[in-house]
Amino acid sequence: MLKELKEKVLEANLQLPKKGLVTFTWGNVSAIDREKGLIVIKPSGVSYEKMKIDDMVVIDLDGKIVEGKLNPSSDTDTHILLYKEFKGIGGIVHTHSSWATSWAQAGMSIPCFGTTQADYFYGSIPCTRKMSKEEIKGRYEYETGKVIVETFKGINPEFVPGVLVNNHGPFAWGKDAMESVHNAVVMEEVAKMAYRSIQLNEELGSIDNNLLGKHFLRKHGVNAYYGQK
Amino acid sequence: MLKELKEKVLEANLQLPKKGLVTFTWGNVSAIDREKGLIVIKPSGVSYEKMKIDDMVVIDLDGKIVEGKLNPSSDTDTHILLYKEFKGIGGIVHTHSSWATSWAQAGMSIPCFGTTQADYFYGSIPCTRKMSKEEIKGRYEYETGKVIVETFKGINPEFVPGVLVNNHGPFAWGKDAMESVHNAVVMEEVAKMAYRSIQLNEELGSIDNNLLGKHFLRKHGVNAYYGQK
Amino acid sequence: MLKELKEKVLEANLQLPKKGLVTFTWGNVSAIDREKGLIVIKPSGVSYEKMKIDDMVVIDLDGKIVEGKLNPSSDTDTHILLYKEFKGIGGIVHTHSSWATSWAQAGMSIPCFGTTQADYFYGSIPCTRKMSKEEIKGRYEYETGKVIVETFKGINPEFVPGVLVNNHGPFAWGKDAMESVHNAVVMEEVAKMAYRSIQLNEELGSIDNNLLGKHFLRKHGVNAYYGQK
Amino acid sequence: MLKELKEKVLEANLQLPKKGLVTFTWGNVSAIDREKGLIVIKPSGVSYEKMKIDDMVVIDLDGKIVEGKLNPSSDTDTHILLYKEFKGIGGIVHTHSSWATSWAQAGMSIPCFGTTQADYFYGSIPCTRKMSKEEIKGRYEYETGKVIVETFKGINPEFVPGVLVNNHGPFAWGKDAMESVHNAVVMEEVAKMAYRSIQLNEELGSIDNNLLGKHFLRKHGVNAYYGQK
Repeated sequence: MLKELKEKVLEANLQLPKKGLVTFTWGNVSAIDREKGLIVIKPSGVSYEKMKIDDMVVIDLDGKIVEGKLNPSSDTDTHILLYKEFKGIGGIVHTHSSWATSWAQAGMSIPCFGTTQADYFYGSIPCTRKMSKEEIKGRYEYETGKVIVETFKGINPEFVPGVLVNNHGPFAWGKDAMESVHNAVVMEEVAKMAYRSIQLNEELGSIDNNLLGKHFLRKHGVNAYYGQK
Repeated sequence: MLKELKEKVLEANLQLPKKGLVTFTWGNVSAIDREKGLIVIKPSGVSYEKMKIDDMVVIDLDGKIVEGKLNPSSDTDTHILLYKEFKGIGGIVHTHSSWATSWAQAGMSIPCFGTTQADYFYGSIPCTRKMSKEEIKGRYEYETGKVIVETFKGINPEFVPGVLVNNHGPFAWGKDAMESVHNAVVMEEVAKMAYRSIQLNEELGSIDNNLLGKHFLRKHGVNAYYGQK
Repeated sequence: MLKELKEKVLEANLQLPKKGLVTFTWGNVSAIDREKGLIVIKPSGVSYEKMKIDDMVVIDLDGKIVEGKLNPSSDTDTHILLYKEFKGIGGIVHTHSSWATSWAQAGMSIPCFGTTQADYFYGSIPCTRKMSKEEIKGRYEYETGKVIVETFKGINPEFVPGVLVNNHGPFAWGKDAMESVHNAVVMEEVAKMAYRSIQLNEELGSIDNNLLGKHFLRKHGVNAYYGQK
Repeated sequence: MLKELKEKVLEANLQLPKKGLVTFTWGNVSAIDREKGLIVIKPSGVSYEKMKIDDMVVIDLDGKIVEGKLNPSSDTDTHILLYKEFKGIGGIVHTHSSWATSWAQAGMSIPCFGTTQADYFYGSIPCTRKMSKEEIKGRYEYETGKVIVETFKGINPEFVPGVLVNNHGPFAWGKDAMESVHNAVVMEEVAKMAYRSIQLNEELGSIDNNLLGKHFLRKHGVNAYYGQK
């Protein structure tokens, strides 16, 4: 069942340690088959060294396990909500990658200080508000998704493919599992450079909107001219 | 004698360079056989590349060498005291890993700034007070253990599996040798992220107690739901 | 056509990931054959793992593709302008290497704080001014080159083989492709050390002019005595 | 001639890139045969990948080449002066390792903030004063040695086996070539941790003298008890 999607999700999960985004099992990637309404996601707490294709868990959009012997990632409810609300995305990744998490712990959005970020994110990478006691004590992972969606009121998630969950860490997404990991790598890299830029110049502001638009649209949309056709 | 425990202690020691926690011979792991009251510990000043199972030293809780041709780690007395006082632990590791040691040198506890730390530590990772002249000139390594125990007055060491020794470096522990190394890796990672978070936001406070409890108890205790059963 | 030059440009491009200067495809190297007036440059958006000699694109100084099936780097116009204006250089590299980019994002030149920089750069590594709306909306990559040339008014580009483009990242150059990469590695290394030096001592000034001259001229010019004859 | 010493000097030089202390050819190790009054030193500007035993240069204490086809390190005069003045040392290393160089560029000594440094250095790692115009324009490398010696007035170089040359970088030494490299690794590691500790706590002072003495003497002198007999 969904063999091809499982392979892609496995391969995307295995990219996490290769790209230096995870310690131990601190990360998970999923992807969705929009037609079937089914999600493939990493199992909870399984080491990347031992992970096999049959360990991938298939769930539906109610969180019911459709196939798989293992428990899905403990963050599954967050993934589900994001797939429901962000219709244009096909893959999601969550990690505790160290630079992005450092910003999330500080409760700060990552301003767009340069063209590296502008090539992928049409502005700041937002940080969510802190969650309330009720949200934490309630259906926590689902509420985490809700607070992300609230943060994107007025922001197109396809133009800003990632978020920092306050006191927690980054989520990133893309059109499929591998692109979500690609965007997670970008977030980590720009989180690192933004940290250093602001240490050098604490008054630093975001880049000019013209430069932001120039770079984002050089790579995205109908007039993009980066790469090969 | 204690062949299986020696293998585990050797393997845990060899993880230290693999995980980037040590330079040269700056670290040591031990484990205890609670029934026999015997501890297996790394020899002093032996390089990880050459270390073999027969180099492991077996000592009793009085520090007497029961088996082994080499001197045990110079920090042996600290290990012994911790095993005596923290009845629930089975393995201990000491390193000079660079991020945790940077906090220890600054004489500062690591506040809990995010869920990464909360997943493993039920609050701050405490830093001991400075040792007195008498403690330093006396039975130094034993006194180091005593000041750690003093720091944990009112703290359950199974809920906070590590400490920073002031002006020195980290100790971590766990139910066995390998879990102690796992916790040492976590300490290093959260020490790194906490450093960066506080540089970004110097007014930063610890996370909300509800979030702390949620994450710690998601992974520990009877209602844990992270990972596989 | 230009087989030897293509091999050199390919090899120089492959050095970028080996030296840790690039993430994904975020970098490009070119070289010029001054006699023929032809430039060999990396194609746009092609991964370093798959890049082959036949992917290299040959262009003339008007930007016309003379040979090659792929689009040249999106930064080609910047390369062309630099070759036209800086007659003594034979190779150019652009990356988003993280330390140099952090300074570029901060909009700050890298002062010469030590002999490591003085061995290669006869003074600060300058940061360009911000580009105007017109420059960004116009022929952007060409204007990027122009603002670099403007920055070097009064500076010999052979004595200062690199620049930071404001809000963007570094360009470096040299007598050929490989030397440009060599200088890009030096820029990244001195950017890292300068960051840390200024964090330690925020009042820090540039080194003495005598020391600057001593080191630069120990390695460059007729009285150089570093290395072998 | 001096085959064994050449092998040791070559092996110590090859440790520099392995330990991450050098970029390109930015480092050199030498050792002295005190009985013969001859020094073996790395050639200038030769890459570590290609360096062979016959590339090692033998010089006498006047700097005269006794054997070898290549030019000795451009820093040879500094090495010679240190061997003449510090009678107890047998090997010297100079690098531009990034953390130690960051302190040197800042013109700051590295205070002893913890036991890691105290295990090897009996106090701060001093930074030299800036050199005068006359010293720089004169016999520069020899004067560099002299300013190091001046810095050690009242300090035993065997108790403090390294120095930071202002605006330049570290020198370290030891009883032989390999120990000098060992001490250079320690310097780099403590430079890194001291940087972070002082960023965390800018009022931070050096450790207590009792703790300093305890750790240094645990590893050095007649009452040392670290390691194996």
